[in-house]
Amino acid sequence: MSAIASAAVSAAAPSTPRQLRLAARAGAWSAPTADVAPGYVQGNLTILPQALAADFLLFCQRNPKPCPLLAVGSPGDPSLPTMGADIDLRTDLPRYRVFRDGVLVDEPTDVRALWRDDLVAFLIGCSFSFEAAMLEDGLPVRHIEQGCNVPMYRTNLPTAAAGPFGGPLVVSMRPLKPRDAIRAVQITSRFPAVHGAPVHFGDPAAIGIEDLARPDYGDPVRIDAGEVPVFWACGVTPQAAMAQAQPELSITHAPGHMLVTDMRNTRLASF
Amino acid sequence: MSAIASAAVSAAAPSTPRQLRLAARAGAWSAPTADVAPGYVQGNLTILPQALAADFLLFCQRNPKPCPLLAVGSPGDPSLPTMGADIDLRTDLPRYRVFRDGVLVDEPTDVRALWRDDLVAFLIGCSFSFEAAMLEDGLPVRHIEQGCNVPMYRTNLPTAAAGPFGGPLVVSMRPLKPRDAIRAVQITSRFPAVHGAPVHFGDPAAIGIEDLARPDYGDPVRIDAGEVPVFWACGVTPQAAMAQAQPELSITHAPGHMLVTDMRNTRLASF
Repeated sequence: MSAIASAAVSAAAPSTPRQLRLAARAGAWSAPTADVAPGYVQGNLTILPQALAADFLLFCQRNPKPCPLLAVGSPGDPSLPTMGADIDLRTDLPRYRVFRDGVLVDEPTDVRALWRDDLVAFLIGCSFSFEAAMLEDGLPVRHIEQGCNVPMYRTNLPTAAAGPFGGPLVVSMRPLKPRDAIRAVQITSRFPAVHGAPVHFGDPAAIGIEDLARPDYGDPVRIDAGEVPVFWACGVTPQAAMAQAQPELSITHAPGHMLVTDMRNTRLASF
Repeated sequence: MSAIASAAVSAAAPSTPRQLRLAARAGAWSAPTADVAPGYVQGNLTILPQALAADFLLFCQRNPKPCPLLAVGSPGDPSLPTMGADIDLRTDLPRYRVFRDGVLVDEPTDVRALWRDDLVAFLIGCSFSFEAAMLEDGLPVRHIEQGCNVPMYRTNLPTAAAGPFGGPLVVSMRPLKPRDAIRAVQITSRFPAVHGAPVHFGDPAAIGIEDLARPDYGDPVRIDAGEVPVFWACGVTPQAAMAQAQPELSITHAPGHMLVTDMRNTRLASF
């Protein structure tokens, strides 16, 4: 948990997605959303000026594993009707990050004052959905056991660029015994809209990761004897692309403070 | 088979995707591509001016079942490196359709003379891939048995619009016994990149189809006793959207004359 999270407002845990969104909107919830409204899809938010929207959309199309698009808004429209009733993307996330020219400048709890007629919202799938499926199947998810963030690493695997967007693939890592890793491949393959099957397992150096104990984002986790690290494409990849593109304005969710949608996780299962 | 097809050049059937593309490029193959290079993905081509490309990309993102994008080219670039070595989209399809302001004006065998620096190519998945999986599983595919085109129908189901692109969902229909229809749901669910699971089965009127014997595109097929019509989202949907948007220039493959790629059908299976 970050300093922000521990300072956050989180009195009574909402039990439905809409209750969480309304609590965030009212300023009554600014904590992370892990474990809130279990069973419902949570999404990574990226908001960009329309001038960059086409290139970012193409970047997502060309990199579907790290950037699985759940929805794209219309210019100037802060709703996202396919993902939930009455969503207001300016207020309904517990906390945001605001970037100017690619530099983090603020972490507000609403972005009404920043909204413009040319802003376009992108919602990208999040591994919370496939982790729920892994847990339901009895597989261990180490960072959840340890109560920390998932470890994430920049790799030497390039994304497919589109306009100013490019850069390295970022992966998340979960240690698993080989038998469980095989089952995790099966389970996560069913969820192409939330990163799908892993991209690598085993030797970290093979994808340019020097030290598993020093993740680039998130927290290190314990790897037990007999376990192998398993790597999935990660929704932080578009943030790395954003840092490269340096848009004059971009707004994202604060890490762990996701949009909680009305869509059930099971609706993302391809089979 | 259309008049065009029967007049087409198709001397020796190429056995690999690249051989087919080179034969088309050399003017030695202008016939349909069904049954050519079995096992490889064939795609629906749409080429548009860059000014409309962002809206069309968004239209595809919002309508993934009828418009599953396999690849998007860069402006002015007639290659499509993720789909095959040395592809030249101006020459490598056996036949094209050229539209001016939404109206069909020509069906040439290459479009080099029309190419411009601002043209963007979109490749959309095609049901050939899931039909191959159905046939391998022993399921009947009626229009293949009858040697005609699949019947396609405009429905009363709207697509999600994006800019000038919108209009009705177009579906293709394959009659199946209920047991086979269930299996077909399983098989085609594995192929989200080529329209995925059906959108409807049974009563045609429920989705606005008046008469199965009079398809809007393709040919009618026989429905045997005990069979139900099963409807899949169809790659003709973007053509209907194009007719609505009336771009000053658009180029597509001629029906049945697809881009034959180097990607194996099995690579599109989500699981």
